[in-house]
Amino acid sequence: MPDRSLPIGVFDSGVGGLTVLAALEAALPGERFLYLGDTARLPYGTKSPASVARYASQCAGALVARGIKLLVVACNTAASAALPALARQFPTLPVIGVVEPGAAAAVAATRSGHIAVIATEGTIRAGAYQAAIGALSSDVRVTALSGSLFVALAEEGWTEGPIVELAARRYLDAAFAQPLPPDTLLLGCTHFPVLGRALAGVLPAGVTLVDSAATTARAVAQLLAQRGLASPLAVGATHFLATDGPERFARVGSIFLGRPLLAAEVELVDV
Amino acid sequence: MPDRSLPIGVFDSGVGGLTVLAALEAALPGERFLYLGDTARLPYGTKSPASVARYASQCAGALVARGIKLLVVACNTAASAALPALARQFPTLPVIGVVEPGAAAAVAATRSGHIAVIATEGTIRAGAYQAAIGALSSDVRVTALSGSLFVALAEEGWTEGPIVELAARRYLDAAFAQPLPPDTLLLGCTHFPVLGRALAGVLPAGVTLVDSAATTARAVAQLLAQRGLASPLAVGATHFLATDGPERFARVGSIFLGRPLLAAEVELVDV
Repeated sequence: MPDRSLPIGVFDSGVGGLTVLAALEAALPGERFLYLGDTARLPYGTKSPASVARYASQCAGALVARGIKLLVVACNTAASAALPALARQFPTLPVIGVVEPGAAAAVAATRSGHIAVIATEGTIRAGAYQAAIGALSSDVRVTALSGSLFVALAEEGWTEGPIVELAARRYLDAAFAQPLPPDTLLLGCTHFPVLGRALAGVLPAGVTLVDSAATTARAVAQLLAQRGLASPLAVGATHFLATDGPERFARVGSIFLGRPLLAAEVELVDV
Repeated sequence: MPDRSLPIGVFDSGVGGLTVLAALEAALPGERFLYLGDTARLPYGTKSPASVARYASQCAGALVARGIKLLVVACNTAASAALPALARQFPTLPVIGVVEPGAAAAVAATRSGHIAVIATEGTIRAGAYQAAIGALSSDVRVTALSGSLFVALAEEGWTEGPIVELAARRYLDAAFAQPLPPDTLLLGCTHFPVLGRALAGVLPAGVTLVDSAATTARAVAQLLAQRGLASPLAVGATHFLATDGPERFARVGSIFLGRPLLAAEVELVDV
């Protein structure tokens, strides 16, 4: 039985997973978090499944070596490519990805039974969301879209205005113009929630935007309670690790975390 | 003295260097080329100089191990971070980067003595173009701009239309609206030449667009002639290596190479 006061490990290819961390911090204020951004090898979204699985194994290993009680894979591409392998590699460690919670949120939100999911090329090609939604409900139709430019727009901080709106129209319009269009858009990349307002502005009225941050945080809270692993602390804390460029991690990361982050708070590590 | 029939090694973080390869193939039709795209670790442009220097050393080592007579570093970020280190690591191998040829082309093009250079964040922060232009001419003023989104736009194949034009305005307008504005825009990233037409459309009349592909090819031709290394072959050939995803390399690479490239032509390697 792991120590309840150990931190929860969270990793992502870079800064996108900070949207999930922000939801975790909000939902679980007494927990300690150890966040690792693999900025030396980002993005994962355009890499092959074999490379992503190797990177994920190394990130998880680095967090486990420092001591964690639960692992959150806060990167859709890594969760798509590596979740079963991570569960085998660390058989006693509870591991939660962002794909199943996101899929569950989308299935709960749709009324028409048609969900659109937009994610990186790697996540879409891996078919993880399509499979996770299919496992939850056999009569839900899924339209899968890849939107790699959204990652660069989010990292550049261009989260509103005509450029992101035009890009959103280019990625989304055809899907929402089809007969019996989707009524739910699942953001299948942790970078995308910061573009939420711009995306909502170009979607037809009545379409629900869903991301996996809040539902992942709820899934983590449930699992901690089930296993008796909830922190005994009144106030938590977060420690940040990055495999490259603490300064850029802090600057760009602030956009995703929703609060200022200083380079001095980010420890440079090799995994 | 190396064998004149050996190939010329060319590497880049991914597909952008294929714009340089296309210029080399056109200028040197009898040469063999060995092109390596380090797609497993792209992009280099947002990584730290230390990481980029390590990757460059590994890429160069992989090419040298297969036998090359000259090395072209067709990635501005790698050339900025690693050229002196590569020259020390391989003391008998001629090594040419894209920074000095690009700087020379811009200095030759400017009449007003004010050059703007746009590149990735890493290249601009390293100051390589500013230094190379300064070394060629002490009275040239340089306005340095970073334009990371251009990499994603080029890789998405969105090389014309309103999105790239709006992004170009956002990156460039302020620099060209200043008093005594630049009269030359140097594209300091090998991805950017495919956006050339869109960029020209938003620049004030009379601004000259310069990239390093053609001047790098000329510098390579000169060096081959000087060292007696020009190929004895009538018809050359190119072999492609990539560290990840041959299919994506071929699909996206075709945009940069300017001719179709098949996944079957790309050998997957580990460096």
